[in-house]
Amino acid sequence: MTPSAAAGAGDDRVITALELAPAALTPEMAAYFAKCDEKLGFVPNVLKAYAFDMPKLDAFVAMYNDLMLAPSGLSKLEREMIAVAVSAHNRCYYCLVAHGAAVRQLSGDPVLGELMVMNYRAARLSRRQRAMLDFAVKLSAEPWAVEEEDRARLRKAGFTDRDIWDIAAVAGFFNMSNRVASATDMRPNTVYHGQAR
Amino acid sequence: MTPSAAAGAGDDRVITALELAPAALTPEMAAYFAKCDEKLGFVPNVLKAYAFDMPKLDAFVAMYNDLMLAPSGLSKLEREMIAVAVSAHNRCYYCLVAHGAAVRQLSGDPVLGELMVMNYRAARLSRRQRAMLDFAVKLSAEPWAVEEEDRARLRKAGFTDRDIWDIAAVAGFFNMSNRVASATDMRPNTVYHGQAR
Amino acid sequence: MTPSAAAGAGDDRVITALELAPAALTPEMAAYFAKCDEKLGFVPNVLKAYAFDMPKLDAFVAMYNDLMLAPSGLSKLEREMIAVAVSAHNRCYYCLVAHGAAVRQLSGDPVLGELMVMNYRAARLSRRQRAMLDFAVKLSAEPWAVEEEDRARLRKAGFTDRDIWDIAAVAGFFNMSNRVASATDMRPNTVYHGQAR
Amino acid sequence: MTPSAAAGAGDDRVITALELAPAALTPEMAAYFAKCDEKLGFVPNVLKAYAFDMPKLDAFVAMYNDLMLAPSGLSKLEREMIAVAVSAHNRCYYCLVAHGAAVRQLSGDPVLGELMVMNYRAARLSRRQRAMLDFAVKLSAEPWAVEEEDRARLRKAGFTDRDIWDIAAVAGFFNMSNRVASATDMRPNTVYHGQAR
Amino acid sequence: MTPSAAAGAGDDRVITALELAPAALTPEMAAYFAKCDEKLGFVPNVLKAYAFDMPKLDAFVAMYNDLMLAPSGLSKLEREMIAVAVSAHNRCYYCLVAHGAAVRQLSGDPVLGELMVMNYRAARLSRRQRAMLDFAVKLSAEPWAVEEEDRARLRKAGFTDRDIWDIAAVAGFFNMSNRVASATDMRPNTVYHGQAR
Amino acid sequence: MTPSAAAGAGDDRVITALELAPAALTPEMAAYFAKCDEKLGFVPNVLKAYAFDMPKLDAFVAMYNDLMLAPSGLSKLEREMIAVAVSAHNRCYYCLVAHGAAVRQLSGDPVLGELMVMNYRAARLSRRQRAMLDFAVKLSAEPWAVEEEDRARLRKAGFTDRDIWDIAAVAGFFNMSNRVASATDMRPNTVYHGQAR
Repeated sequence: MTPSAAAGAGDDRVITALELAPAALTPEMAAYFAKCDEKLGFVPNVLKAYAFDMPKLDAFVAMYNDLMLAPSGLSKLEREMIAVAVSAHNRCYYCLVAHGAAVRQLSGDPVLGELMVMNYRAARLSRRQRAMLDFAVKLSAEPWAVEEEDRARLRKAGFTDRDIWDIAAVAGFFNMSNRVASATDMRPNTVYHGQAR
Repeated sequence: MTPSAAAGAGDDRVITALELAPAALTPEMAAYFAKCDEKLGFVPNVLKAYAFDMPKLDAFVAMYNDLMLAPSGLSKLEREMIAVAVSAHNRCYYCLVAHGAAVRQLSGDPVLGELMVMNYRAARLSRRQRAMLDFAVKLSAEPWAVEEEDRARLRKAGFTDRDIWDIAAVAGFFNMSNRVASATDMRPNTVYHGQAR
Repeated sequence: MTPSAAAGAGDDRVITALELAPAALTPEMAAYFAKCDEKLGFVPNVLKAYAFDMPKLDAFVAMYNDLMLAPSGLSKLEREMIAVAVSAHNRCYYCLVAHGAAVRQLSGDPVLGELMVMNYRAARLSRRQRAMLDFAVKLSAEPWAVEEEDRARLRKAGFTDRDIWDIAAVAGFFNMSNRVASATDMRPNTVYHGQAR
Repeated sequence: MTPSAAAGAGDDRVITALELAPAALTPEMAAYFAKCDEKLGFVPNVLKAYAFDMPKLDAFVAMYNDLMLAPSGLSKLEREMIAVAVSAHNRCYYCLVAHGAAVRQLSGDPVLGELMVMNYRAARLSRRQRAMLDFAVKLSAEPWAVEEEDRARLRKAGFTDRDIWDIAAVAGFFNMSNRVASATDMRPNTVYHGQAR
Repeated sequence: MTPSAAAGAGDDRVITALELAPAALTPEMAAYFAKCDEKLGFVPNVLKAYAFDMPKLDAFVAMYNDLMLAPSGLSKLEREMIAVAVSAHNRCYYCLVAHGAAVRQLSGDPVLGELMVMNYRAARLSRRQRAMLDFAVKLSAEPWAVEEEDRARLRKAGFTDRDIWDIAAVAGFFNMSNRVASATDMRPNTVYHGQAR
Repeated sequence: MTPSAAAGAGDDRVITALELAPAALTPEMAAYFAKCDEKLGFVPNVLKAYAFDMPKLDAFVAMYNDLMLAPSGLSKLEREMIAVAVSAHNRCYYCLVAHGAAVRQLSGDPVLGELMVMNYRAARLSRRQRAMLDFAVKLSAEPWAVEEEDRARLRKAGFTDRDIWDIAAVAGFFNMSNRVASATDMRPNTVYHGQAR
């Protein structure tokens, strides 16, 4: 590895810029970490970052898993597309790396992952998905200006009121996570970079 | 009440612009709602808004209560000050009404609540509290530009790394809630307006 | 009063951050101050702030009273709504406090005052009043982009050319006052906070 | 004159996009218009634009003349430099033409007028004048962020508290006038363009 | 000349803030400089600024002359209008002075030159020219948001695909030149100021 | 390939949204295309996009090759880092794909390429490279505000005046190319995506 390589890679053991001693995992959380390791081959750094305090980690995991994995009118890929388009608006390194990989994997389309990271407007999307991302990004950029006509546009593109909630909730969640990650300089697991290219 | 009065007040039974049928409360959540009603005299509308789906409501309540009520180096008032300063940046009507009231109540200073809503820079704050709000608002406005020197400023103002996490987490949380509220046109309980004036 | 209370309230005798010795009031202005005191119970701090120089105070009072009180196709409440929506755009503490109180009083609707301060887009307004505020706020945010189609929208909402002048003049005036107040850290009379809640 | 020439010049009799019938000038105002005509060779269009209503015209003239011509720690040229730098921020065609000409005339430096119109940061200014314009333009761009350290910078550059008021008042005034001019599409007298080149 | 005059005019021998020794002109470039001097009466400072390195100067001149002078569906005046409207967006002193003069000369309309510098939206333009400038300025302000509907608007205003390329290429070129000029504090030849007034 | 895959990939034969018939390549340009094909395995689409007109293609190639390949105080990698950081500011899909690959290749550090695309502030850079990118991105975002103190920061980080020119010229060039690419919806060669991962 050349000297400049070190510039990008960083040290994989450093997860945030904050020194917070890890707490003891509860048995349930230890099992969850083991399951991550088994399924993914690693524990996502965001979980390790929250692991200094079990109630905070529990709350984060519960909300994350409900939003991204529970039944919804939005497919899992669509939820990940929102995650990346919002994180691109906020230029969040952690979330772009981790969820960009998820878009590549869920879509089987490495280029789609890059498009979400770089400029979702350049992607060839269905009218439905374009309306979904336009809403999510407007909600990120100027939430004060989101009004009934924005919701009407989603309904016209085929979304139900429940779907609108889910779009808002996923976009909202990443507007939170992007800021926690940026505030703490959270670093993604290096393994994401090579996935599903 | 004059006709123009209706312009402001709206209909207190309408909570969001989305039609989402309420789910049956779990016994634990029913008890929690009853406790709210007993302590506050009402159930905050945000809880009713989430009540179409119990796992989402559970996750929201767990995260909210941990962030705003659990032990922290930040006082409860400081956490509410962050909530309002962030919500003012995002011009979120629901959160400004509900948390503006909380600042007035916790501080016993009605003017402080107004200052957080209108422009926190105009308040006579301690150096600590000013640094806290500057960080929270920069994190809201341009999260991509928050860096080590921003964390250093917090440390210099006396905050620990754990405090920095808490500032980031509260600011992040309201960047989420502001967007869910704006996306759904969530309306605050009218009763907040007159509290602690 | 708790220590934090002092943070909000400040010292009611300090009106601006500038040390400018008051000039002798002209007899006409002394009468006007007396009339304010009689009618309102106090002299608005903005008048005291200008009172270091009689010609400046005269010019300010003449323009203010013409704009806000003279006959117009806009009601006095509508002119105050513009004042607050513009001041919210500019996050001017002085004007939000003083004119927020005026909206509450003139409308008899305390919630309407809060909505103007927090986000006028969340209010349930008539099409006429919404068009009026959209014009005033666009004129505040990006005056260079106001064009014939913006005037056409006002005409379509029922405004005459004279009304358009008045909307522009009131919005313009508060874009001036907001800046004089912010530049000098002008503090509103504390009494406004509790009015018409 | 080529057809494209008409694109720029417009019709010199049209002063704004609003149809407002001129009111009868008061004798004092008629005398003032006559004096303008005698001294300048024309009546500035802004005066004709306000002439549909004598109290509005009186108030405008009184405030304008006090701000721009009364004794002040700022020279008349400095006040015009503020006028143009603020109007450039707001891209106000009327004010840039009329006050750009004033800077050229008062300074005897045609290039200085162009610099104020195009980008005041490119001018070779004294530290005093640069501080003055930085304050005026920040006050125009983000009035909510002007604070004690901005006033301190002016004091350090040699300005008194009274001077600070005057800088704020002139900058504020043009933030008003720019908006009235843009809202009404006010057109400057063509004669300004060739003056003091 | 008064002292303040020096503020504007600067020293005509200083071309940029960078000290870069001029290279020997190639015979072709020497001939080109001679031709400029003969036709214009001077060598534009941008050419002298690039003259520290012949390949860079060659590349700049080749691209500039092709874009601004080669056959195109856009007239030379239209290309200069784009140059000035883009440079106004970027507030580039060098380009506004040099190309503002070009608009005045090519149009025979001194006012049109001022309008392009101050706010192109205030000019009375044909629908074609307005669409052209709206595209060029949007492309300057938020290139990420330019999409098919923007191109469609140009086609509807009568532009061919080749014309669209040319609008984009000229707008792009001045987004480059504006930045090279601002980065180096490039100063225009003083003679431009008085041309074609 | 799943249906969503098509969303990302598009059709590799479509290069821009404009229909511009290719011109006959000059013998020199035909040789250059052949050399690209031999060295890279493909002809970059930007060259094909310009190939409707030989003088434009010649000028683009001459300027590009001089800027990115000629001797300079900036390494080739550093010039590519500027290209990507500027293109990330402008969210240009074409340039991020093509030059992101170049950063990965030249650095041998796939993560560095991602950091430049996502948020260069998150990279662990030398003080020199950080100063270089801060200048390039400020020059992209607000060229009107770049002044002597910005150049001073570069000099303090070790850059010569010639280096400053090169930073400005590369940043300027990509501010041009980003806009030509966005205006025409230019699509990168698909092969870039998998390179040097």
